[in-house]
Amino acid sequence: MNDRLLRACRRQPVDATPVWFMRQAGRSLPEYRAIRERATLADIVRDAALCAEVTSQPVRRLGVDAAILFADITTPLPGIGVDVEIVDGTGPVIARPVRTAADVAALRGFDPEASAAGLLEAVRLLRRELDVPLIGFAGAPFTLASYLVEGRGSRDAGALKRLLHAEPEVAGSLLDALVDMSVSYLRAQVQAGVQVVQLFDSWIGVLGPFDYARHVAPRMRRLFEALAPLGVPTVHFGTGGAGLLPLITDAGGDVIGLDWRVDLRDAWQVVGDRAVQGNLDPSVLLGGWAEIEAQARWVLERAGGRPGHVFNLGHGVLPATDPDRLRRLVDLVHEHAAVEARA
Amino acid sequence: MNDRLLRACRRQPVDATPVWFMRQAGRSLPEYRAIRERATLADIVRDAALCAEVTSQPVRRLGVDAAILFADITTPLPGIGVDVEIVDGTGPVIARPVRTAADVAALRGFDPEASAAGLLEAVRLLRRELDVPLIGFAGAPFTLASYLVEGRGSRDAGALKRLLHAEPEVAGSLLDALVDMSVSYLRAQVQAGVQVVQLFDSWIGVLGPFDYARHVAPRMRRLFEALAPLGVPTVHFGTGGAGLLPLITDAGGDVIGLDWRVDLRDAWQVVGDRAVQGNLDPSVLLGGWAEIEAQARWVLERAGGRPGHVFNLGHGVLPATDPDRLRRLVDLVHEHAAVEARA
Repeated sequence: MNDRLLRACRRQPVDATPVWFMRQAGRSLPEYRAIRERATLADIVRDAALCAEVTSQPVRRLGVDAAILFADITTPLPGIGVDVEIVDGTGPVIARPVRTAADVAALRGFDPEASAAGLLEAVRLLRRELDVPLIGFAGAPFTLASYLVEGRGSRDAGALKRLLHAEPEVAGSLLDALVDMSVSYLRAQVQAGVQVVQLFDSWIGVLGPFDYARHVAPRMRRLFEALAPLGVPTVHFGTGGAGLLPLITDAGGDVIGLDWRVDLRDAWQVVGDRAVQGNLDPSVLLGGWAEIEAQARWVLERAGGRPGHVFNLGHGVLPATDPDRLRRLVDLVHEHAAVEARA
Repeated sequence: MNDRLLRACRRQPVDATPVWFMRQAGRSLPEYRAIRERATLADIVRDAALCAEVTSQPVRRLGVDAAILFADITTPLPGIGVDVEIVDGTGPVIARPVRTAADVAALRGFDPEASAAGLLEAVRLLRRELDVPLIGFAGAPFTLASYLVEGRGSRDAGALKRLLHAEPEVAGSLLDALVDMSVSYLRAQVQAGVQVVQLFDSWIGVLGPFDYARHVAPRMRRLFEALAPLGVPTVHFGTGGAGLLPLITDAGGDVIGLDWRVDLRDAWQVVGDRAVQGNLDPSVLLGGWAEIEAQARWVLERAGGRPGHVFNLGHGVLPATDPDRLRRLVDLVHEHAAVEARA
């Protein structure tokens, strides 16, 4: 069993820096695209064997140190009564957005075995097959609320921000409902076998620190406190959150995810005594190898070989990425760290 | 003559914190919308009297401490041979993007008197009329290059980043040409009478520190060095640049603009011995007055009454903003600072 990821999450020494990639399973892999010719994303998530297969593909092809359960952050939403359609080129679309106190009150409690049976069965299958740790995940409440209120991905989350400012109790009860859902969903994932959980706050970069501190931080703190008894490391990743980093760190997470728009060393100083994950710009993978190598080595140098670095991209793998480049990057990370360990 | 802005840019004491708003002239004002019923943005920029009128409107209505010359960041581009159309709802669109060494070589040198005659005449008119300082501006080279390479505003500037990584000499010569254009354009604005110049790096938030340090910082440094002999304060504003703040500051500017996604006090510590401008979230202006007041006072408290704070939004005024709210916010800023001065 390769336990580099688990050791790094706990800031223990490792023989090589663990590396995995957000969206490592997905459109960059030809074997995934072949499956998508006959199955939608929703089909894959419902079918345990198919979901386990897609989750395993990047482990086999790329040699990464972790698998991440294949699903979308909106996958659990039908379980609270919100229908979601994943539209190619647009992403998740919610036909009936959640915007009023009545809409929030109409949300159901989340029952993982009823609403995520295929996914949880996939976790059990994967734990028998994998020789690397399996990461479970959920969207963070603010990011999920942004889909629910806007009806789809939104560059500025304007409707959710108006709700936060004009009707903070409605927005707050929506965020609270999403904390409850995420705790239930992640607890079920851990009970089924995932060994790390990551919260993706993909849209948090639209908020300033005043709003984050008031509306989001208390909810994230409650979420991480509810996850603590599960005994697995937690990763807290907020995209575009450079200016929020002190607040994000304070809200919780054993590992703080960094996107590509921060200097890893400077950011780690803000984060303090936690592990960090990141932070290569995924767009670099579209260029030549010399550029990839230079930027990957810079990330590793900024981490300085200190225990507690999980190498990753600063955002998801872009669909046009050549998987051979990813494979070579995995080797580079492993070898670089080994050289440092001997030095 | 109200010189609060000029004093704050130089970190001298002021009787009240100066305040102006990015995009204070524009669609939030009914008197602007009335003009737009009979004139396009390009018409306004060509017609000195109309441009001066639009520039003055927010000074009269809102009582702000500065005017900013009304134009678009793409306004000078036809002067180097690039045709731009401003499309309602999309923004600037460039029919023939600049993507190859030949495209860059075909760019012309910028002749301000030939290409910006109306705008420069508007500056002269405004200096006779205004009793507040007049700010000139230009788009920063990376942001302009993103329009030129992408053909329009792009969330991730993917094509420009690919050019930076794959053909750095082509990207570099484009950035250099845009530095030359901006120096010529801003020098002409200062010679015509603007008293402060601001560089808008609106798309810089897509870059990480590795790319910024290598491709952008040397060009911004050259730009600010070329502006220094003009003797007017310079403002350097990069949207989404929280993680780049040390590099942005190092590249130049007497005043560092802060968007709304950073804590002003933390950011000012990074900026050090320069003035700062910002940083209220513009979306707050769409809510009730209690919310506006709470967040505006928080910004002022984070500035702590130290000399060198120019109050502003963290981004442009949203078109749906009620100008009465902006007027009331100006009064709040002036009164808050006066209270602090007496304390």
